[in-house]
Amino acid sequence: MNTFGQYFRVTTFGESHGAAIGAVIDGCPPGLELEPADIQAELDLRRPGQSELTTPRREPDRVEILSGVFEGRTLGTPIALLIFNRDMRPYDYSKLKDLYRPGHADYTYEKKYGRRDYRGGGRSSGRETAARVAAGAVASKLLACRGIQVVSFARMIGGVWLDGSVPKVDSQTAGQIADLSGLRERIYASRVRCPDPKTAADMEDAIRLAAEEQDSVGGIVEAHAYGVPVGLGDPVFGKIDARIAQALLSLGAVKGIEFGEGFRLAGMRGSQANDPFAADSKGGVVPLTNRAGGMAGGITTGLPIVCRAVVKPTASIGRVQRSVDAEGRPLDLAIEGRHDPCIVVRIVPVVEQMMNLVLIDLFLAQQALQGWDREARQY
Amino acid sequence: MNTFGQYFRVTTFGESHGAAIGAVIDGCPPGLELEPADIQAELDLRRPGQSELTTPRREPDRVEILSGVFEGRTLGTPIALLIFNRDMRPYDYSKLKDLYRPGHADYTYEKKYGRRDYRGGGRSSGRETAARVAAGAVASKLLACRGIQVVSFARMIGGVWLDGSVPKVDSQTAGQIADLSGLRERIYASRVRCPDPKTAADMEDAIRLAAEEQDSVGGIVEAHAYGVPVGLGDPVFGKIDARIAQALLSLGAVKGIEFGEGFRLAGMRGSQANDPFAADSKGGVVPLTNRAGGMAGGITTGLPIVCRAVVKPTASIGRVQRSVDAEGRPLDLAIEGRHDPCIVVRIVPVVEQMMNLVLIDLFLAQQALQGWDREARQY
Amino acid sequence: MNTFGQYFRVTTFGESHGAAIGAVIDGCPPGLELEPADIQAELDLRRPGQSELTTPRREPDRVEILSGVFEGRTLGTPIALLIFNRDMRPYDYSKLKDLYRPGHADYTYEKKYGRRDYRGGGRSSGRETAARVAAGAVASKLLACRGIQVVSFARMIGGVWLDGSVPKVDSQTAGQIADLSGLRERIYASRVRCPDPKTAADMEDAIRLAAEEQDSVGGIVEAHAYGVPVGLGDPVFGKIDARIAQALLSLGAVKGIEFGEGFRLAGMRGSQANDPFAADSKGGVVPLTNRAGGMAGGITTGLPIVCRAVVKPTASIGRVQRSVDAEGRPLDLAIEGRHDPCIVVRIVPVVEQMMNLVLIDLFLAQQALQGWDREARQY
Amino acid sequence: MNTFGQYFRVTTFGESHGAAIGAVIDGCPPGLELEPADIQAELDLRRPGQSELTTPRREPDRVEILSGVFEGRTLGTPIALLIFNRDMRPYDYSKLKDLYRPGHADYTYEKKYGRRDYRGGGRSSGRETAARVAAGAVASKLLACRGIQVVSFARMIGGVWLDGSVPKVDSQTAGQIADLSGLRERIYASRVRCPDPKTAADMEDAIRLAAEEQDSVGGIVEAHAYGVPVGLGDPVFGKIDARIAQALLSLGAVKGIEFGEGFRLAGMRGSQANDPFAADSKGGVVPLTNRAGGMAGGITTGLPIVCRAVVKPTASIGRVQRSVDAEGRPLDLAIEGRHDPCIVVRIVPVVEQMMNLVLIDLFLAQQALQGWDREARQY
Repeated sequence: MNTFGQYFRVTTFGESHGAAIGAVIDGCPPGLELEPADIQAELDLRRPGQSELTTPRREPDRVEILSGVFEGRTLGTPIALLIFNRDMRPYDYSKLKDLYRPGHADYTYEKKYGRRDYRGGGRSSGRETAARVAAGAVASKLLACRGIQVVSFARMIGGVWLDGSVPKVDSQTAGQIADLSGLRERIYASRVRCPDPKTAADMEDAIRLAAEEQDSVGGIVEAHAYGVPVGLGDPVFGKIDARIAQALLSLGAVKGIEFGEGFRLAGMRGSQANDPFAADSKGGVVPLTNRAGGMAGGITTGLPIVCRAVVKPTASIGRVQRSVDAEGRPLDLAIEGRHDPCIVVRIVPVVEQMMNLVLIDLFLAQQALQGWDREARQY
Repeated sequence: MNTFGQYFRVTTFGESHGAAIGAVIDGCPPGLELEPADIQAELDLRRPGQSELTTPRREPDRVEILSGVFEGRTLGTPIALLIFNRDMRPYDYSKLKDLYRPGHADYTYEKKYGRRDYRGGGRSSGRETAARVAAGAVASKLLACRGIQVVSFARMIGGVWLDGSVPKVDSQTAGQIADLSGLRERIYASRVRCPDPKTAADMEDAIRLAAEEQDSVGGIVEAHAYGVPVGLGDPVFGKIDARIAQALLSLGAVKGIEFGEGFRLAGMRGSQANDPFAADSKGGVVPLTNRAGGMAGGITTGLPIVCRAVVKPTASIGRVQRSVDAEGRPLDLAIEGRHDPCIVVRIVPVVEQMMNLVLIDLFLAQQALQGWDREARQY
Repeated sequence: MNTFGQYFRVTTFGESHGAAIGAVIDGCPPGLELEPADIQAELDLRRPGQSELTTPRREPDRVEILSGVFEGRTLGTPIALLIFNRDMRPYDYSKLKDLYRPGHADYTYEKKYGRRDYRGGGRSSGRETAARVAAGAVASKLLACRGIQVVSFARMIGGVWLDGSVPKVDSQTAGQIADLSGLRERIYASRVRCPDPKTAADMEDAIRLAAEEQDSVGGIVEAHAYGVPVGLGDPVFGKIDARIAQALLSLGAVKGIEFGEGFRLAGMRGSQANDPFAADSKGGVVPLTNRAGGMAGGITTGLPIVCRAVVKPTASIGRVQRSVDAEGRPLDLAIEGRHDPCIVVRIVPVVEQMMNLVLIDLFLAQQALQGWDREARQY
Repeated sequence: MNTFGQYFRVTTFGESHGAAIGAVIDGCPPGLELEPADIQAELDLRRPGQSELTTPRREPDRVEILSGVFEGRTLGTPIALLIFNRDMRPYDYSKLKDLYRPGHADYTYEKKYGRRDYRGGGRSSGRETAARVAAGAVASKLLACRGIQVVSFARMIGGVWLDGSVPKVDSQTAGQIADLSGLRERIYASRVRCPDPKTAADMEDAIRLAAEEQDSVGGIVEAHAYGVPVGLGDPVFGKIDARIAQALLSLGAVKGIEFGEGFRLAGMRGSQANDPFAADSKGGVVPLTNRAGGMAGGITTGLPIVCRAVVKPTASIGRVQRSVDAEGRPLDLAIEGRHDPCIVVRIVPVVEQMMNLVLIDLFLAQQALQGWDREARQY
């Protein structure tokens, strides 16, 4: 399925080297101020060719709004977003027509569909995520109107870890909206999407070193959502962590996810893992700690949502790999073309927007339920 | 949403201490031999009260098939499965009516819905997963007819790791159906669902130690799917890893998941992480290694699917926890009632059945696509 | 698919002569007062065996609420409703095992699934609608809290027409909630579900006459929805008339539907068919007439929704029919068993509840959209 | 919702006078030969400006395939179809900004969304159906590969009826694919989409007469589907008639639908309405007559599907209508702009394509079910 969401439904389309890629958003509430520049700003954060750390493919990724917006505001009808492909060089890829690149989806697409667009990965290309970012930009505008903001950043690249809490959120500030001023700007000012300049420099070195060796590195992206109200998430199969996990694992290079303390919880005792409750300043109750990453039973607690996704090293490498061709004859494969030595850098904004898509969907779901009896919850 | 799947749709219902729990399966193909005993056998693997390592709540979990089966075979109509609740002791829980148990969903349910069934967690209880197991048992019968089998086991409990490959699957056997004879039996013969007796004994000790200290432990469940054909999984948002991630994170105690090499990929180079291709015995091509865990681009490669889920330590512990009541007044909380000191043990069969539910759904999806032109893939 | 609705999702299950039939409601808002008697009252209106005009099968149709209700109010979790089958006499039907009854679904079920439950129609039996009525009863309670009420009645039976507007709704009262007091009571006081006693007597005669001749009659059911706010209905594929049409055509005996002036519009001019606008008492604008049946562009106008569905004569008749057996050998078929000579009578309450299911679904959809900016419709 | 279908999912977007309209198809099987000309041919049948009987708006309706097709065949990935709007004259419509046109959706869109694109009806314009036709053209190519063909035609326009069976399908030929050669060509050779030249001439006169009087006429469209195998349709809520009813009522001008004998069944006896079974030439069994319109219990019988939809007269008329403005002040309204005096003519191909969309969806659904055990239907 190429559609994500139940209420704010995003359908993406397009092959990497076809005519265009795009997205149709169905279910966006009416009345939101929206212009192409809002979306363009987010697309520009993901665009290729921004530094020598990313692929030199030059795609302006210029978005057009074809429908659903009138006189500067959304109509409540489907919003079609279109990005024409420009810098297509199929000749880069034609030699891969009869090959399956290791770590890519060439082989599985061929087996599943009986055919594939072999130019640059076709539909399986990371380029498809540009359409997600465009849709996510609309979601982020809606969420911002309700005080909800997502930020993501590189927690680790090529073995280089960013230490410490980002931003500082402790038991005192938990439940309040963190002071995010400048955080997102600092993240995107960094070419590796890491808010700490010293760490960022080390990460850059790790990427450069791998690139020089015709190789690639992986890493870990961390995402936080602030200002999320208590009560989002559908119990059972639609738990917020289940939905976010689906959203992030639907990115080709992501191979795992964890929430809050994540895999560390395997080695903890219950007495260490539980988030005890405390009185909040208004006489209510809040969790005192956030080991669970902002949720309980799949429903948000009001504390920041915290998750981390592992990103595998870019599959396309210049280094020679031993492989076989489609008939099983041995060969040496060195992938030329234009590639990112570290895809983490460009996945950071995609992770952010996928989180936004999950949150807006659950927000609207909660409205369907709650609008009903917002005050009394009684009939 | 309480429904899982698009083709083989499972809707579960029921509160822990209500009249009954159950599931309705919509979309099961007709003609499958099915009787209650098939389902009962799987339910018995998850049932409470099996050893001193699990909760002493005594639930026979006797399943009834109310519809969809006639003369011993499925009709193609909805299959309703019902399990009446028997050993309910609401008095165990009434004192928790005005409390939010740390690590539980009491607080978030109350905030989301404005009310909750406080008896044993109501809908958020792990008991809901019995309905999933019942539905998964039907899926596993269908999959077995196609040579597909899932096994899961405890990879780690309370800091005790099971080492080595389980079962041995290497580059020689990859792509072939592993010899699973006896593996599943050995797993369920162990009270901690670990196929190695020595490790299992250590895991038991770790659980007992925690239980004696009125505490609980977590762990890691690993799941493998064998015999999966190439081509399952829907690209983009329905990638098989995205679907499995949603399925497993929809279990309350699961806080993270990884596929293949998982989080280790963050520190690898592309040249280490890629699965190169090799000739198979029939002149075709297969991946030589399985670092990706049986998939590429979200579509199965034909190698075994491999994933691991982290399970947090049981939230309910006898140990005194500092907390507050619903009005924010400080108190000391010691949860009595009947609890599992290590929920990993009982999640193992649930993980297995959730995998089955994902696989059958993708299998039927592929049939809708492929039945169309099974031979030629041409019109 | 056995699920209806996107927000208020109803899944029904069960065969006519299986263990039970039932429904699971997912998406019911929390806080609604609900007890079995609320549902039972509606089920009793559809129950067989109420007069000599309906089948003598004696089914108490006693409903149980298995989940989703606690301390007398809905929890927001799935509500499972169960009705055990009691008066099953499979011997009535065993002789039909190798026959396809004309006008029934025996043949098509057999061809579609390769097997069928031949006892009383199995899943294709009208008995399945009892589960819909049970679910609709919950919807009607929710809608009543918002001032929305549906009534339906027999407009024609066996050639006997009920003339005139029911109730009187003209340009003066259009847009206001009609005075419905007593209307529904009068409808259900009639054994043929017709509010005019004189017409009802004629309808009864028509049914009796057909029954004496071992035959059956059809008719037309009309349904009205009052108090529906402006703005319900999803443009394009989810138009309110499209949704109602799907809902009512999903009843086995319904073979057509029309809204407002319906098929008469084919012979009208635009100048006769349009509903002009007029000022309402509060300085707003309302349609002056209601030829469109309460909607424009698939969205409600605030006037009553008006539709009519044609119900075919009961397929099961005692009269001898020329047919063939499953091998094509000629035979004379006289269906014994217990049958309704006019199914219109029992479809009336089902139509009402299907309308309720559509309306609650669209109502919740609108809340998801509108709760967002209820006052300003601006961000 | 702007998406139709579960397996072959079509999402449409676009406003009448926005930048473009279009559709995204998700779920199209791979390997189908497809080029823009295939779609263009169908679009041309619906295009405005074809004769003086339709609106003079000149839209080339040139379709582009943006994705999902590679080297002349479908890939199995989403197919995005785009039609840029060309002949937009917003000045025609600006004066209607503060008016609600009788019979149009201006009022209801404004009330539902708080805003609307008032240029030519925006999203509620009949122009949206061009996107459906484009998607339906792909469906019709798939269905043609399986021997399934839909034809539709004007059964009545402005009081002028086409008599007789079209084409001749009687008890001898029922179940066989009718000889359709030339039928579709004859229908579309007629400017009113009526295969009988004499009747067509009378229909044209009726339209011209209404147009001269600044008025419009309605009519009835009939659709047949030939070559449909036994077994399509999902029992209960997804009955084939329910699905077709939803599909056709989702067209703005359609106000009712009937299948087979339709509303005539209300006055029949069961003995007249039932389709008895007979032996077919191969020793099997088929219904002898087709009063039910090709289905039983919502599943196809193998006989042609037959339905009729009523189309209301075009709402936009030049004739003066008494109305009020948005503030309720009385005024005389004469709609200028460019309008069809009889929308039946242009709805005929849309009905055809909506039928195709329903059929392909049910066909794929059946494949998911049946591919499973095509031969044995046993496990």
